[in-house]
Order: sequence, then structure tokens, then C-alpha cells
Amino acid sequence: MFVLGIDPGLSRCGYGAVRATAAGPRAEAIGVIRTDPHTPLPNRLAELQRELRDLIGELRPDAVAVERVFFQVNVRTAMSVGQASGLAMAEAIGAGCEVVQYSPNEVKLAVTGDGSADKAQVQSMVRRLLALRQEPRPADAADAAALALCHLARSGLARRVAVAASTGARR
Amino acid sequence: MFVLGIDPGLSRCGYGAVRATAAGPRAEAIGVIRTDPHTPLPNRLAELQRELRDLIGELRPDAVAVERVFFQVNVRTAMSVGQASGLAMAEAIGAGCEVVQYSPNEVKLAVTGDGSADKAQVQSMVRRLLALRQEPRPADAADAAALALCHLARSGLARRVAVAASTGARR
Repeated sequence: MFVLGIDPGLSRCGYGAVRATAAGPRAEAIGVIRTDPHTPLPNRLAELQRELRDLIGELRPDAVAVERVFFQVNVRTAMSVGQASGLAMAEAIGAGCEVVQYSPNEVKLAVTGDGSADKAQVQSMVRRLLALRQEPRPADAADAAALALCHLARSGLARRVAVAASTGARR
Repeated sequence: MFVLGIDPGLSRCGYGAVRATAAGPRAEAIGVIRTDPHTPLPNRLAELQRELRDLIGELRPDAVAVERVFFQVNVRTAMSVGQASGLAMAEAIGAGCEVVQYSPNEVKLAVTGDGSADKAQVQSMVRRLLALRQEPRPADAADAAALALCHLARSGLARRVAVAASTGARR
């Protein structure tokens, strides 16, 4: 199974593509899509849409896992996250992918064993689980990879993820 | 000039296409796109995206005017409106349209002469300005047509709109 995690945002939209392999979960692409804050909003949205479409089209994931956000510091942020997440989910369905949503707490629990883990813990566990040389930065990229790992663990297709997570948590 | 107004929403997304003609503003399409609340969110978003794309592709407006929402009753509503507005703006830019945003107060002021007008006043003025037999319903459809009228008035290309609005307001 090949999962693309997306941490939606307009200034920085994190993505992390993780494939379940016999040797454990493997990162195939981790990064962020950025749009210029000085560009008018509609053009930024159109640019993000194109980038997401290209990314999904190139990677062709089986499933796309998008962060589900209920609470935000303010409505302005909620609008912006809503706009980015809407584009991500519509593009994923349009490309024939399964789309799932997980809350930040579900992701933290699945990846670190602690639903209230901080960003540093998530970054550290993502690095360990994916055997990366260094922690993915910025945090949005690590969060997106964590979303993909969460879906693999939840799907029961990557028992190794869960095993590695529990081992990692005890270290 | 031909303007498509969009009042973004997931359950009901209002649209109103208004053309500036020598005889005054003329409605070419007014209605709502609905998505089924029982369908999973990603599929609803993809459906709304397709419908918006088809609508914009059929009408080929010069400009698309989308409601700008800063404040919402709750974050859940803001997310949902954000998702719908993001799709509308990205599709409009993708189709080569100019995209503009107006706040509800700007629209009410332009159409009724009163920035704090209620929904009934907006519906009534939209009916008068567009010489419709009856008021557009639901309110989302009237709001979308009002957005288009607002942009025509603001563009200075439809002086008749402003004149008719001030006449209507005095009635």
C-alpha cells in the first residue's frame, strides 16, 4: 500500500508519501508545497491546486490521508486550512484515490504512542520509523509523513509500523 | 461584462450569473449546487468541484465574485465554507477568469444601499434589479446574484445597477 499524507496549508502544505514494503515503511517523497503570501489568494489557491494535482498524478498513491482539523486558533486560519484541505481532498478523489482523514491526536497516538506528543517527538519518530538520516523539516513535512504512517498502521497493512513505533517509544 | 457570483457552501453553494447589457443587468443563471450530507466529505468536495468546473465552463464568465467570509459562527462552518470557497476560486482562476472577493457587508451596501440589510431585503432588491418575476430562492442563490451585481456596480460598468439600487431603496 502506498499512502500520501497531506498536512493542508496555504503558505506551507506538507506532503509525505510512504510505501509499505516487506522491509518496513519507506518514504518516497517528503516535502512542502509553498505559495507566495504576496500573490493574490485566488492565484495561490489555483497554484496549490495545480501542485497537488501534479504531485498526486506523479506519485499515484492508493490512498491520501489528510489532516482533519476541528479547532483552530482563529477563524482566519480555519478558512485558509479549509481551502487547502478542500483542494487536496477533491483532487485526490478526482484522481481515483481513497481519501481518509485523521485528527492530529490520532496521528500522534499512532506514530508516537502518545496523543499529546509535541512536534519534536513526532519529527523524531517519523525519522526513526522511516529510517531517515535526519528529521524531516519543516514540521509540516514531518506531520504529513506521520499522517501516511498513521493510515498504514490503521489499515493493518503495516504491522511493522506499530511494532517499530512501540519499540521507538520505549527507547 | 459577464459576472458569476458564488456564495460558497458545501450543502448549498449559491450561484448567480449576471450580464451587463444596455438595458441593465440581466440574470442568465441563478441557482444552487447541492451536495448530499450523507455522502463522505471528500466525495462531496469532488462533486462540488466538478459542478463548479462545469458551471464556469458552460457560462464562461469574465469575472467570478466570491463571498469573502472573515467571521463565522463556529470553526466547523468556517472550515466548510473555506473548502467550498477554495474550490470555487481555484476553478475560476484555472478557467482564466478574474476572481474578486467581497464581504457580505460590501454586497449588501452595493445592492440595497444598507450594509446591514437582512436576507429578505437582499432578495427583494435582487428581484427588482434583475427584473425577476419572483425573488430568487433559496437565499444562497439571491446572495450569489447580489455578489455579481456588486461586482458590476463596483466595476463602474453598470451604472444602471447603482441607479436602480438607489431608486429601489427609496421605494
